[in-house]
Amino acid sequence: MNELTINLKPKDKRPLYEQIYLYIKENIISGKLAYREKLPSTRLLAKHLEVSRSTVELAYEQLLSEGYIESEPYRGFFVAQVEGLYHLIHEKTASLEKRTEEKDQYRFDFTPNGVDLKSFPYNAWRKLSKDILTDDKVELFRLGNPQGEEGFREAIRKYLYQARGVNCSPEQIIVGAGSDYLLMLLCSILGREHAIALENPSYKQAYRLFVSQSYRVLPIEMDGYGMKVTALEGTEADVAYVTPSHQYPTGIVMPMKRRMELLRWANEKEGRYIIEDDYDSEFRYKGKPIPALQGYDRGGKVIYLGTFSKSIAPAIRMSYMVLPKGLTDVYLDKCGFINSTVSVVDQMIVRHFVEDGYYERHLNKTRSLYKGRHDQLIKGLAPLADVCRISGEHAGVHLLLTFGGKATEEDLIKRAKKAGIRVYGLSDYIIGEKDEKATVLLGYANLAEEEIEEAAKILCSVWKP
Amino acid sequence: MNELTINLKPKDKRPLYEQIYLYIKENIISGKLAYREKLPSTRLLAKHLEVSRSTVELAYEQLLSEGYIESEPYRGFFVAQVEGLYHLIHEKTASLEKRTEEKDQYRFDFTPNGVDLKSFPYNAWRKLSKDILTDDKVELFRLGNPQGEEGFREAIRKYLYQARGVNCSPEQIIVGAGSDYLLMLLCSILGREHAIALENPSYKQAYRLFVSQSYRVLPIEMDGYGMKVTALEGTEADVAYVTPSHQYPTGIVMPMKRRMELLRWANEKEGRYIIEDDYDSEFRYKGKPIPALQGYDRGGKVIYLGTFSKSIAPAIRMSYMVLPKGLTDVYLDKCGFINSTVSVVDQMIVRHFVEDGYYERHLNKTRSLYKGRHDQLIKGLAPLADVCRISGEHAGVHLLLTFGGKATEEDLIKRAKKAGIRVYGLSDYIIGEKDEKATVLLGYANLAEEEIEEAAKILCSVWKP
Repeated sequence: MNELTINLKPKDKRPLYEQIYLYIKENIISGKLAYREKLPSTRLLAKHLEVSRSTVELAYEQLLSEGYIESEPYRGFFVAQVEGLYHLIHEKTASLEKRTEEKDQYRFDFTPNGVDLKSFPYNAWRKLSKDILTDDKVELFRLGNPQGEEGFREAIRKYLYQARGVNCSPEQIIVGAGSDYLLMLLCSILGREHAIALENPSYKQAYRLFVSQSYRVLPIEMDGYGMKVTALEGTEADVAYVTPSHQYPTGIVMPMKRRMELLRWANEKEGRYIIEDDYDSEFRYKGKPIPALQGYDRGGKVIYLGTFSKSIAPAIRMSYMVLPKGLTDVYLDKCGFINSTVSVVDQMIVRHFVEDGYYERHLNKTRSLYKGRHDQLIKGLAPLADVCRISGEHAGVHLLLTFGGKATEEDLIKRAKKAGIRVYGLSDYIIGEKDEKATVLLGYANLAEEEIEEAAKILCSVWKP
Repeated sequence: MNELTINLKPKDKRPLYEQIYLYIKENIISGKLAYREKLPSTRLLAKHLEVSRSTVELAYEQLLSEGYIESEPYRGFFVAQVEGLYHLIHEKTASLEKRTEEKDQYRFDFTPNGVDLKSFPYNAWRKLSKDILTDDKVELFRLGNPQGEEGFREAIRKYLYQARGVNCSPEQIIVGAGSDYLLMLLCSILGREHAIALENPSYKQAYRLFVSQSYRVLPIEMDGYGMKVTALEGTEADVAYVTPSHQYPTGIVMPMKRRMELLRWANEKEGRYIIEDDYDSEFRYKGKPIPALQGYDRGGKVIYLGTFSKSIAPAIRMSYMVLPKGLTDVYLDKCGFINSTVSVVDQMIVRHFVEDGYYERHLNKTRSLYKGRHDQLIKGLAPLADVCRISGEHAGVHLLLTFGGKATEEDLIKRAKKAGIRVYGLSDYIIGEKDEKATVLLGYANLAEEEIEEAAKILCSVWKP
């Protein structure tokens, strides 16, 4: 074969060499150009198509690199054996994401799991990812340390020490793709023979996780200071999962005395542990944040969990776990071979984000933003002062309203819904028997102050008896 | 306070507004500017510092947004309550990555887990990540579908159907951060009461994983066709983990007859499953690839595992699992609440990478590259034809050499090491009693053809009796 008549389109958005490449490739795939058939020389084909020789050379090079043709020294180019090559048909799928957008029925959604949409530092993020993909190409080819990159763990250690009073070395830190995964890993480290105590009401995600990992789960009653250690002592539980800095969902901050009682409980018996989930300690609007329980642990009893997903963006699947020193060897022995679930590139981005000061600024900015919304919501709900009690304020991104009298949770939610507002019931967080009190949760992280003002007015009018 | 004497440095790389911002911030943190203290007006400070008013305004805005100062209408700017703010000390850590670079002792490393360093399509990747971070900002704020984004799963479905003959719907696919994680998840779906059969020798990572998940693991003997189903039948195993398209590490391709026997075994009893790990089916240098076992499964018995980590880059933590239809409800019920371990942004990048044709080109390019290295290595080892037998060729990225006579594995590795070459022993992959045959593994994915030529020459000279 010495001629290839290709109908080149100079105005096509694809460059000429690509048109030649595609034409020959399709002819090889369809079999019109058979195995071992000789291709015209680049000089001849260039002349025939009236294009420059380098254009044809580019097309041949591409065909060569993808295995469609072979070159033989002094003889030219030949069609290669292509039955093992990939020929995928590329038709773009119309996007399938037909999420049930139930929230569209609502004008305002006070979801307690919201995050502000506008506060993400896109520019810094784009800059850091570009830098890393340009400078540190080799990072893409490292499977990385199963625990997370050492430099990144050191950056986390410093942050935790300064911001949360956590005492640890990088060897105690494990980076993972989200808290669910880290809890799964923790279950593998601790083994399956445990009974785990949870605050009630509780973070349902953790509850379900422990159930899925075949743990016995024991919900423990709370008082105004958090999990009742006296109630805990009466059970067979040997692991207690708690959220002392801001109990989810009640917002209770566990005072020092209760923290010490909990540590004492853990120290009383070998094999007892406390899992401290510090999931949203970042946001606190009044006074200094209380240091983490982990910082007071002298007996190696506290397993600390934190996350960047909440404080940076939910799509960033990145959390960390700090093991007590005594468990690091167990981890290495039983699970140290399990590959990291976070890409090295993402770890590099967040490491620089923290080390270059972006994270501090981002936290202070978001805190300031959320504080404005928090204050606005409390102000807007003032007319309800005689019918309900506000709790869980001054921290986190949601409030709780507990109603007296004959109001029921269901009814409160229904009345809000009728007025186009979505609020959430506390009973969703209770394990076992529901409380008789009517309590609703109002999250304010992704509503603007003006929206909160308007929505609060409506809520006051529909909830006023 | 009406004066702030800031020593501005016009030649500093930080802009003037940032210098003002930093100066005031530091004075607030140190307490020199106390809570409630009034700041000079922007006009006055601009005049005093001899800068434009907008420069001072920018600095104040930043202080305001991060919560260091507050503005009061008609009154001006005041120092805010800052005890809850983050003040992190940023000193960059000297990188801690002091990996034990044992490979530096070697001139050539025939690691069987290598990936070519130069073949990654950086430009396409950078372009796609930039596009996504620019156009789809909202993606960063989506926690995403726990199974993986629907559009991405549809792209995977199409790819698997065309390239591997896998039959499934997007509902059967779960995306996860690496195969280790997906196997952990699978254990939670199947429950802990299983005995699992593994090929012997085997992929040690899978072996360790199942052990860490409290499974009983039973190594099963192989013949030239893969796992012996007659041996499997004699055990209590109800789940068989196999690598039919290219057994790791022996390279055996399981013929159709054996595949059918395996499917028959699974169909004989309820609750039996086959896990098909198709970890490196992408690379095959001779003939058409054999379709996946999953494609022949009529009884809903095959759980299929694949990965992008191997075919794109190890740092990309992205694998997928295809459940049989009968297990999707079990998954949703027991583990459907577990959040995705892969960031939505990364899923978007790979989705476009696949749909826009980059993946096809990348696979064909890499295959062509590896084929060259494969051919070169076989050619280079030809002088050893009378002392050893080559197996596992024509697919994957490593070969096996089995030596007759009195050679021991240990001795072969030692002699290669002395000559600066690292090779790997098969016994590392054997569970239980070691084989008496001397077999070494030679991976060729990250050595150039010239390096392979040189290294093969050296190996021939040190291994020739």
